[in-house]
Amino acid sequence: MARPTPLSGFPELLPGQRAIEAHVLDTLRRTFELHGFAGIETRVVEPLDRLAKGGEIDKEIYVLRRLQAADDQDDSGQASQLGLHFDLTVPFARYVLENAGKLDFPFRRYQIQPAWRGERPQEGRYRQFTQADIDIVGHGELPFHHDVEVMRVMVEALGRLPVPPLSFQLNNRKLIQGFYRGLGLPDLTTAIRVIDKLDKLPPEVVADQLVELAGATPEQAQRCLELATIRVPDTSFVDRVRELGVEDELLETGLAELAAVVEGCAPSAGERVTVEANLRIARGLDYYTGTVVEIFMSGYERLKSVGGGGRYDALADDGKTTYPGVGVSFGVSRTLVPLISDGVLTSSRSVPSAVLVALVDEESRGASDAVATALRARDIACEVAPAPQKFGKQIRYAERRGIPYVWFPPVDGHGGDAHEVKDIRTGDQVVADPATWAPPPEDLTPRISTSVMTKEHP
Amino acid sequence: MARPTPLSGFPELLPGQRAIEAHVLDTLRRTFELHGFAGIETRVVEPLDRLAKGGEIDKEIYVLRRLQAADDQDDSGQASQLGLHFDLTVPFARYVLENAGKLDFPFRRYQIQPAWRGERPQEGRYRQFTQADIDIVGHGELPFHHDVEVMRVMVEALGRLPVPPLSFQLNNRKLIQGFYRGLGLPDLTTAIRVIDKLDKLPPEVVADQLVELAGATPEQAQRCLELATIRVPDTSFVDRVRELGVEDELLETGLAELAAVVEGCAPSAGERVTVEANLRIARGLDYYTGTVVEIFMSGYERLKSVGGGGRYDALADDGKTTYPGVGVSFGVSRTLVPLISDGVLTSSRSVPSAVLVALVDEESRGASDAVATALRARDIACEVAPAPQKFGKQIRYAERRGIPYVWFPPVDGHGGDAHEVKDIRTGDQVVADPATWAPPPEDLTPRISTSVMTKEHP
Repeated sequence: MARPTPLSGFPELLPGQRAIEAHVLDTLRRTFELHGFAGIETRVVEPLDRLAKGGEIDKEIYVLRRLQAADDQDDSGQASQLGLHFDLTVPFARYVLENAGKLDFPFRRYQIQPAWRGERPQEGRYRQFTQADIDIVGHGELPFHHDVEVMRVMVEALGRLPVPPLSFQLNNRKLIQGFYRGLGLPDLTTAIRVIDKLDKLPPEVVADQLVELAGATPEQAQRCLELATIRVPDTSFVDRVRELGVEDELLETGLAELAAVVEGCAPSAGERVTVEANLRIARGLDYYTGTVVEIFMSGYERLKSVGGGGRYDALADDGKTTYPGVGVSFGVSRTLVPLISDGVLTSSRSVPSAVLVALVDEESRGASDAVATALRARDIACEVAPAPQKFGKQIRYAERRGIPYVWFPPVDGHGGDAHEVKDIRTGDQVVADPATWAPPPEDLTPRISTSVMTKEHP
Repeated sequence: MARPTPLSGFPELLPGQRAIEAHVLDTLRRTFELHGFAGIETRVVEPLDRLAKGGEIDKEIYVLRRLQAADDQDDSGQASQLGLHFDLTVPFARYVLENAGKLDFPFRRYQIQPAWRGERPQEGRYRQFTQADIDIVGHGELPFHHDVEVMRVMVEALGRLPVPPLSFQLNNRKLIQGFYRGLGLPDLTTAIRVIDKLDKLPPEVVADQLVELAGATPEQAQRCLELATIRVPDTSFVDRVRELGVEDELLETGLAELAAVVEGCAPSAGERVTVEANLRIARGLDYYTGTVVEIFMSGYERLKSVGGGGRYDALADDGKTTYPGVGVSFGVSRTLVPLISDGVLTSSRSVPSAVLVALVDEESRGASDAVATALRARDIACEVAPAPQKFGKQIRYAERRGIPYVWFPPVDGHGGDAHEVKDIRTGDQVVADPATWAPPPEDLTPRISTSVMTKEHP
């Protein structure tokens, strides 16, 4: 069969690159679990009517069909067609409804899985991509402090990743809606939708559209733009908004909530992750009702946001109970695939092995296996050379894979019965005991390096 | 929206059940990495012509279609339709061919991912199921000792799982083929296919079919059955086969290889995993050429094998180079889903949290958060109570989730400034310092329990 070529929109990683992704996923997972989030996985398919948003079927969905099934009919007797999920929120909402009687609320969960969209592939947009989501869901109600918690956990988790600096841009829907209402705007929904275009259109055009489409007066439109330009790394936005002279109860709630989230995230923020109040962030999706966030990566603004989320008063509803939630989604593939293909993220080796145990001759494979077994008993990943080539060739075998150490068992009649181990990066070779020797901790797993463009090194 | 119901054939796990699966996957992964196997993931789709076996399209494949795409045509301009992979071998073979120039051979990889088949759901047979595969692939050639290695690694990995005893039933295609050839059977392929029915048909019927379908004499058929009844936990099968008086060079190679695999696995075997030579194991798939294995689980023989694999001289071939391989696949869902639904495998808790930090009142949430932060800094998973309910209610909150410890920060004006922590299983409560206290190591993560039916407790 001819050599296959990659499928556009379905990125795959080489082993060393996959080690980077695995490190990132492990780090996220560990942080989520430290905060009590339980990991779940949902099946990858949902009935089409669940995937439909507001009754309309999204055209980017992949639909499944059994190759030999009769046209337009699944032969299992299930009435509805199945499609691949396009995010992790829809299947999570369904999971909560389906298992509500068996879950304990508030329910904290993380979910790291691929999702699929049949859209035109481009950088940061793939047909298969991995997401990492955290959400907290309540039964009937969910206190506001969980907004602070969920944002803080994601700030902490992303702050541990070996990626360029990230920025959490926070806002609050109540703040925007209260401000617009206090201002007397006639059509809040349209106004929010128009303001959301500020990243694509110049301010004058947005102001014109606020007048034409949202029924604002030119003076109101001007105030909306003033609100949208407020962007500060602390709670000083509260005074800035008050200076605009709009009074509204919902606005006050929004200001207090946003201030609490910004303050609550501050201790977990730092150089790797910054937190800002950015009052033009609205997020297009209609179901957000309070806190909203979009996450951007320094030097990769062209990817738009690499994550986002917020508070929704009705993640799910079964007619009797409403399940409010707050969550954030991080685009793992969207973030890592460009960083890896740009060479910003690299791994020191393509295999887990920290040690290659050399092979003197095929007859002594058992002796080399015994060394490997002794090292593994102390959690040191290693492999035995596949063939008894000259030691120079065995060292090159390790070098090609980035394995830092080569272990030499004693050669009968040559050099006594001492084992030796060589750091092939430095050439240092020492006598060692398989039962006690260990590499420095940083050599136990592949080293992930980041070449970040900092201000000092533009 | 109405409460959704499960989709037949797409099993999903509750959070505590998922903790069991995650523990199993972590254990497998860790063992594979200790042996130098690199983890990869492939996209879930392959062009249909790659999924076709021998030109024929398997009817169990799920085909993808963009919902709004024109009939029978993917609008991305890609000529071929896409289907979900039905195992991890086909995508791995494609990955090796596609990336051959960037991989180092012999290439050891593990791959843990779901696969999909549109077959009729039944216990142990799902439409979405997770597999854990290891393979070693060579460029042009792959020495036999890798057969021993791959089997030993899987024995070791599965031996660490909290599941009922497993049995590796090993055989060798060269042994069977050499025996049949030495016996003078006219049609080896048909003979192997007929012998493979021994688990469904009585021996007399199989003997008749060997005569009718494979052209054997009644005496030859009898010898075939005698070979197939040999099943021993050591290398004594070599003498047993020789007693049957058949001489053939390929038979000798097969005997030596099978003896080496059985001997090589013995040190890693034990009560949890036994290893046997079982000379009727043939495996139906045509591409195996040497070592073959099927894995069975004690008490769950009705699932048939829970894993299997072997040596294939041509995993992949690009016209210029052949890539031989040897591998084993373990059916994670096939094994775990029945064990979990039977209650054989249980988890002590539904959340990662080892500690619930109680909340005195909403004003002191910061103080409780500080305790949680101090515990997390020492890798202790915990969560803060969602509401300042009476302590009895907060303890019941922990109990429902299986969280073993509840932490009580000091209450102003009551009982001084001492923190206390209670093991709610025993009721023991002690004064503790958030900066130094830790639970016993076995309480750090959920405890996975197995109620195995042993010979002593039938």
